[in-house]
Amino acid sequence: MPLNKYIQDGDNQDLTNERFKATFDTEHLATVYHGGEEKLKKLRHIRNEITKRGHLFDSIPSAHRTRAEKIEDVSRKLKNLMETVSDFADVTDNLDMVAIIRDVMGVDGFPLALHTLMFVPTLQNQADDEQIEEWLMEAIQGKIIGTYAQTELGHGTNLSAIETTATFDKSTDEFVIHTPTTTATKWLVFFKVTINGVQKLEFGRHDVFRTAPGHFAAGRFAAETFRSRWPGGLGTSCTHVVLVANLIIDLKNYGLHPFFVPIRDRNTYLPLSGISVGDIGSKMGVNCVDNGFLAFVNYRIPRRNMLMKHSKVSKDGSYTAPPHPKAAYTTMLYVRSELILHQSCYLAMAMAISIRYSAVRRQGEIKAGTQEVQILDYQTQQYRLFPGLARVFAYVTAAATVSAMTESCIKDLSHGNSDVLADLHALSCGLKAVVTHQASQSIDQARQACGGHGYSDASYLPSLYTSSVGACTYEGENMVMLLQLARYLMKAATKKDEGAALTPLVAYLGGKSDQISTGNDKFAKLLSHFEHIARRRVMHAYRQMIEEEQHGVERDYAFANHSVDWAKAARAHTKLFIANGFAARVQTISDDAVRDVFTTLVELYLCYELMEMAADLTADGYLSEADVQQLRVQIYESLKKIRPNAVSIVDSFDLCDRELRSVLGRRDGHVYENLYKWAQLSPLNQKNLPHVEKYLKPMTSKL
Amino acid sequence: MPLNKYIQDGDNQDLTNERFKATFDTEHLATVYHGGEEKLKKLRHIRNEITKRGHLFDSIPSAHRTRAEKIEDVSRKLKNLMETVSDFADVTDNLDMVAIIRDVMGVDGFPLALHTLMFVPTLQNQADDEQIEEWLMEAIQGKIIGTYAQTELGHGTNLSAIETTATFDKSTDEFVIHTPTTTATKWLVFFKVTINGVQKLEFGRHDVFRTAPGHFAAGRFAAETFRSRWPGGLGTSCTHVVLVANLIIDLKNYGLHPFFVPIRDRNTYLPLSGISVGDIGSKMGVNCVDNGFLAFVNYRIPRRNMLMKHSKVSKDGSYTAPPHPKAAYTTMLYVRSELILHQSCYLAMAMAISIRYSAVRRQGEIKAGTQEVQILDYQTQQYRLFPGLARVFAYVTAAATVSAMTESCIKDLSHGNSDVLADLHALSCGLKAVVTHQASQSIDQARQACGGHGYSDASYLPSLYTSSVGACTYEGENMVMLLQLARYLMKAATKKDEGAALTPLVAYLGGKSDQISTGNDKFAKLLSHFEHIARRRVMHAYRQMIEEEQHGVERDYAFANHSVDWAKAARAHTKLFIANGFAARVQTISDDAVRDVFTTLVELYLCYELMEMAADLTADGYLSEADVQQLRVQIYESLKKIRPNAVSIVDSFDLCDRELRSVLGRRDGHVYENLYKWAQLSPLNQKNLPHVEKYLKPMTSKL
Repeated sequence: MPLNKYIQDGDNQDLTNERFKATFDTEHLATVYHGGEEKLKKLRHIRNEITKRGHLFDSIPSAHRTRAEKIEDVSRKLKNLMETVSDFADVTDNLDMVAIIRDVMGVDGFPLALHTLMFVPTLQNQADDEQIEEWLMEAIQGKIIGTYAQTELGHGTNLSAIETTATFDKSTDEFVIHTPTTTATKWLVFFKVTINGVQKLEFGRHDVFRTAPGHFAAGRFAAETFRSRWPGGLGTSCTHVVLVANLIIDLKNYGLHPFFVPIRDRNTYLPLSGISVGDIGSKMGVNCVDNGFLAFVNYRIPRRNMLMKHSKVSKDGSYTAPPHPKAAYTTMLYVRSELILHQSCYLAMAMAISIRYSAVRRQGEIKAGTQEVQILDYQTQQYRLFPGLARVFAYVTAAATVSAMTESCIKDLSHGNSDVLADLHALSCGLKAVVTHQASQSIDQARQACGGHGYSDASYLPSLYTSSVGACTYEGENMVMLLQLARYLMKAATKKDEGAALTPLVAYLGGKSDQISTGNDKFAKLLSHFEHIARRRVMHAYRQMIEEEQHGVERDYAFANHSVDWAKAARAHTKLFIANGFAARVQTISDDAVRDVFTTLVELYLCYELMEMAADLTADGYLSEADVQQLRVQIYESLKKIRPNAVSIVDSFDLCDRELRSVLGRRDGHVYENLYKWAQLSPLNQKNLPHVEKYLKPMTSKL
Repeated sequence: MPLNKYIQDGDNQDLTNERFKATFDTEHLATVYHGGEEKLKKLRHIRNEITKRGHLFDSIPSAHRTRAEKIEDVSRKLKNLMETVSDFADVTDNLDMVAIIRDVMGVDGFPLALHTLMFVPTLQNQADDEQIEEWLMEAIQGKIIGTYAQTELGHGTNLSAIETTATFDKSTDEFVIHTPTTTATKWLVFFKVTINGVQKLEFGRHDVFRTAPGHFAAGRFAAETFRSRWPGGLGTSCTHVVLVANLIIDLKNYGLHPFFVPIRDRNTYLPLSGISVGDIGSKMGVNCVDNGFLAFVNYRIPRRNMLMKHSKVSKDGSYTAPPHPKAAYTTMLYVRSELILHQSCYLAMAMAISIRYSAVRRQGEIKAGTQEVQILDYQTQQYRLFPGLARVFAYVTAAATVSAMTESCIKDLSHGNSDVLADLHALSCGLKAVVTHQASQSIDQARQACGGHGYSDASYLPSLYTSSVGACTYEGENMVMLLQLARYLMKAATKKDEGAALTPLVAYLGGKSDQISTGNDKFAKLLSHFEHIARRRVMHAYRQMIEEEQHGVERDYAFANHSVDWAKAARAHTKLFIANGFAARVQTISDDAVRDVFTTLVELYLCYELMEMAADLTADGYLSEADVQQLRVQIYESLKKIRPNAVSIVDSFDLCDRELRSVLGRRDGHVYENLYKWAQLSPLNQKNLPHVEKYLKPMTSKL
């Protein structure tokens, strides 16, 4: 029995040969990758159940469909899923539902994502008992379909600038909702508020996502969490929204509050009078989500349509403030760790596609006149792909670490200890930025490494890229995220300067840069380099800023004047965290062969990321050129070591062809004949195309 | 009269304020950017003429159309253009035609691009007089529409692997064309051959593009050169192809030759019997080109359908070899300099869009409680955008330099001197790789810098990115290109080692690394850093390779084992060339104010690119950390200097709104109301959408 369990008769021979080279049991790595036997088993069960249900598949690949057809396809599958999912999966299990949605829907989203993820939970968390009684069940049953409308055409990150108003009219006991300017139009390309604005919200608790992990399955189906932060559904699919608007009573603005607002007739789907609503058009990716616009002209809703669990407005216009607002930090931490997990999954898909294809594709000769080689044999190809492969495992580990730290942090909180919370929250900003940026970059490298065929939608790599790179912008634009972490690091640096105690995640700032670890841990030395770089960058930015302050510049401006350096410091801090977690993970692997593979991936990861920041290593003579050359050589050595296992490693992601949606990434390696079949389905292969009939035939015809 | 000539009444006030800050006359910079008054004037004349012709516009933005509709739109415009272009432009002027095509067609291509760029010139260059007599005029008149079919499903770069055969059948005086395997299917995602394969072609002269610059206007309209390297038209639009296949006579393979092959009926557009042809489906971008597949089952064409200007096959099967093949190096140099120019234009468009939008968009406060600031005021935003702005000018300059060097080289050639030719050809490989890679990266940064709205197709930034990044793969995959240059550098390093004379472009390899220039030229010092890095990287890769050779490894394998280092060396060599040319350009600018702006852009460019390679500067103590810090500070200083002129600089690109196709990049800055208008046109804003009717209404309806 070969160690690679994905070998089948009739597969492409090159791919089979690769699989016979495996030095480890793919079942063991799959177990490690998926976080345990139990989880892997469950995942496979779900996949098998989906396989039995043809009504959950597409008959035509999405790439050949128009946007409206794509949305029709995902809506059909969604309806079928809603009717059957509880037969084979636990709808209250978040990870189950994520896996199902990704398998059935792909990475381009679907119109009702926000209904379950944002709308229903917001009702649960913001509506009072009477309101829940009135609306929740209908929402859960899909009799009303909603989304969450907060960002505006002219206002994203900065919540305080939101313009939409809900003015209380005592005489009719109604709110008058109004869009005062074009820029106040609700415009939902990206949903940024949950991260950036949360602390500023006036209403008591902005815990709109869920109260605990795996605990938001209010509907008959749980929503996929990744795409779900994209506020879809408004364009064409919603009957209602939770609207975030400025509450005005007697000319006084009480700040942002949530309102339950019907926008379309449930029978005709036409906008209600006083409402302008529609789709905002196509985007770089994720086009199965119908992001929308929404504007109001003095539109009236009953007073009791304000969600009143926390703040209240009575008939006479008196306002009851919420209890002291608590930031929903812990919720955000869960959300971020899931986002990282999703990015790692997208990257894993891209790696599986491009590494399998690189084993199948033969092109060029290293020495003229010899056989064409598998392109995976080129050092340059390995250098493009394998660091991305290592990152997959690094990010999976980081997501698990954040998740575990959050659990432990919550326990501490219940004992009144909040030390780690701020560290962790700041770190999660950095992780969001670094992981989305690097993952999308690695996906694009994987795509380019597939040459011309990687540019075809048949590879699925363009969709993976556009979905992944979108995350650099949504849920808090990456630069904003980095600066949020940077501000935290600035405070830590100040503490260090003052000799105050440092919390665990920034304790390294107190260390000295010339202390290269000599511990016998294989990775200790490399990790001390990461510490050196992070410390160096943070303290550099800090000193620059302080110097400017000493020349009379206010701190906010001094910080802004060095924000590029601060962003670089934030990146280094984040990379240090990822590197530490990834290196530590090796110790927890019991299988020797898998641990060896993992060790090589960690080595590659550490050396590669260090070389990306090599200027910080040679500066001030911290490392000699010979030391740096050693790191470089280590990278090339790691590439060589990974090469024979590369296909078996991506096999261990245990992604099925249906989920991969890629002709290039097929398990059986039969790429070319299936590219040919895929192409036949292009709608341009129909007869009587308009451009031919109208413009070409009249030119060429001899009749 | 303000210095910025793009100010109009009623514009967005922030944008007008920016324009009043200009320290230079935008007319002067526009003249410099466009290469002289004459050219700028001509460009404006053409634009005005297009403006008068409504039948050359789209009524609905392309983003709202299906792929078939998009192709219909561009075909309509193409037909109208063919009928009228000679009324207002010189169809034999390449640059004119490029400008027209970009204005009218946008960056997503059109089906007939390859007909004029590849098919007609190939007939001109490869057909003998009798064949030209028979086919050329019909091709020029568009009575036959063709493309160039060479790459195959399984074979791109490596021409020697091409499988399609044309076997001579003496008994009928015909060739039998056959596709022996699936991988032999002609599959035209990318057109790679012109660069990589040209030397290997058997037929006498592969000068298929044109014989001299501006000299290929064989048709009634000249083709746009950029997209044209994408072999479109095969999918749905061609009646004929020039097919490249192995010529077989009496079981002997004479190598690749070109054949004139009818593939579709000119009246019905149905494939001829024995032929399978169609569209290969959608791609990451450039979807108005109908790239196709093509396979033959023992398909017969007359013997005289082989293009016989160079090689010939007579009735009795005897073969006449072509005269000694000459590589069409100089043609390639023109092609490459144009490709660079196109990339610079895409980047210029992205910069114009994102910098204008960054002046209009206000978000966040630097100090809490103050006014929301223009996002262009953030240092991090400037750091994302301005290096890309500098690159626009650097690439325009590089393209002009290559073009001028080619002209001079051709003169030298005519006097029997070919010294510079090989240098220049190798360099052009590096330029292709570095410029396409950096331009697409800068475009993506510009897109991300626009936040959520940058992700919308209304920004046009997604199309600019997907078109630009495609060039990293077509016309020679970037990694292949870099290694081609690297092989040349390897030879140069060998020469240096042997004490032989070095040609001008690699003469710097003979210099010493510790000689930092102290000349009084402002940029001399910075440029000597570039030299240091390039020399260091080349000699490092060389020494690694030699060492391995000394251990008995053959040179081809020793080179391959260090190909990542070689690719890095090739990049550094290329950047040195760009830097030198860009710095030298400053001296040629007569207007003081424009020269000041240009100087700042050069400073930013040099320091930014050096910092990207900073590890090479601090290694071995070449520069101290203080020196590097000075470079860093210089970057931030340059950003500050550029800031007030940023909008005026992009105005000077003189791009009209129609060409920009971007709601965010409008000259008048009225972004928000026009985003709203743009969105209204989304096809999802029609009534009775299938997904609503079939799946949502049944769920929500109360009836």
